[in-house]
Amino acid sequence: MKVIVLCSGGMDSVAVLYAAKKEHSVQRVLSFHYGSKHNDREIPFAAYHSNLLGLKHEIINLGFMDTLFTSSLLQSGAEIPDGHYEETNMKQTVVPFRNGIMLAIATGIAESTKSEGVVVAAHSGDHAIYPDCRELFMQGFAEAMKTGTYAAIQLLRPFISMDKAAVATTGNKLGVDFSKTWSCYKGGDIHCGTCGTCVERREAFIVAGLPDETLYAKTPPLPAPPHP
Amino acid sequence: MKVIVLCSGGMDSVAVLYAAKKEHSVQRVLSFHYGSKHNDREIPFAAYHSNLLGLKHEIINLGFMDTLFTSSLLQSGAEIPDGHYEETNMKQTVVPFRNGIMLAIATGIAESTKSEGVVVAAHSGDHAIYPDCRELFMQGFAEAMKTGTYAAIQLLRPFISMDKAAVATTGNKLGVDFSKTWSCYKGGDIHCGTCGTCVERREAFIVAGLPDETLYAKTPPLPAPPHP
Repeated sequence: MKVIVLCSGGMDSVAVLYAAKKEHSVQRVLSFHYGSKHNDREIPFAAYHSNLLGLKHEIINLGFMDTLFTSSLLQSGAEIPDGHYEETNMKQTVVPFRNGIMLAIATGIAESTKSEGVVVAAHSGDHAIYPDCRELFMQGFAEAMKTGTYAAIQLLRPFISMDKAAVATTGNKLGVDFSKTWSCYKGGDIHCGTCGTCVERREAFIVAGLPDETLYAKTPPLPAPPHP
Repeated sequence: MKVIVLCSGGMDSVAVLYAAKKEHSVQRVLSFHYGSKHNDREIPFAAYHSNLLGLKHEIINLGFMDTLFTSSLLQSGAEIPDGHYEETNMKQTVVPFRNGIMLAIATGIAESTKSEGVVVAAHSGDHAIYPDCRELFMQGFAEAMKTGTYAAIQLLRPFISMDKAAVATTGNKLGVDFSKTWSCYKGGDIHCGTCGTCVERREAFIVAGLPDETLYAKTPPLPAPPHP
């Protein structure tokens, strides 16, 4: 199938890019620059892997989001919190409806390039605190994509039944060099090791039993998930 | 209710802006510059009416669409066809999933500004040839908006049971000066009078029994709708 792949340059979306390249005919790889603190760290890795796989990579500029949206993930926002990625204080890192915006643009580009699907790296570990990762959101959006295009564009989520550790295992088997991916929301020179997404990254490699070649500023013991 | 209003500067969306201003607390008026031939003609009217009503107006730059999307509506696209707005050759003026993209961005801004709804000028005369005007698209998207945000943002379509002539009548009662709106897809100095959207505009004023103060380059007899 001809597909468009969303790839931020993080672990999950780089792994899904390799999976999509194996399974489909990838027409475009899309990264979005929306003014987050870590866009300039992650997007070069999306470009690197696209190039390695011989795929066309486009960076979509959504600079207005940094001005008009509220989130600590953005350059205009507050400091990124440390802690477990399921803590409710991680809510402040949500960029409102970001997945909806990226999927909508990808759908338009899919229709424009005569593609039939949009591939995203959504997995079972995506958290309920992010509303636009929820299953009901994805179902509604998939319906809008299908009915709102001539080609009845499909939303493809090959990793949806895997957790992040399983995604790491799958990516590893596909030959992904995870040292060339970026997770840290703080967007410093190296991964901080303590923000929610660094904690999630560290945990995934441990659970998968894979070496973690990421250079972290600090690696304190991993925090436990919050009490329900 | 606190709302965000989509306003291109066309007849329908200017009328819906006046209706929303009467009914709700309008937090932002949004126009999108996506590289169409007529963006520079229509958006100044959105700004004009926002200013007249004392509302904050934002122009969102989606310049990448002109490069990455295929449509004769775009500056990069082929010539705009003349004829009735329900002819199948009007399909070439569809900008793939444009409504999805605009609604997604508006939803993010709604959540960021603590608004509860997004108002669009969709009406019953919106054509089946545009997939992202269809009811099933709108239903799916509304579900994605509701489930993909903390505030369960609503999609509001106050004109959905009216045709374009009824929208003109409603706008007229609300005090809209329609001479300060733009429809023509060709984006010339004045309305061409013969493209699909000019034909639709001319017809709406006639059916509504309202004076049409638009300056058209040509006003040949209105073409009949295509045979089904």
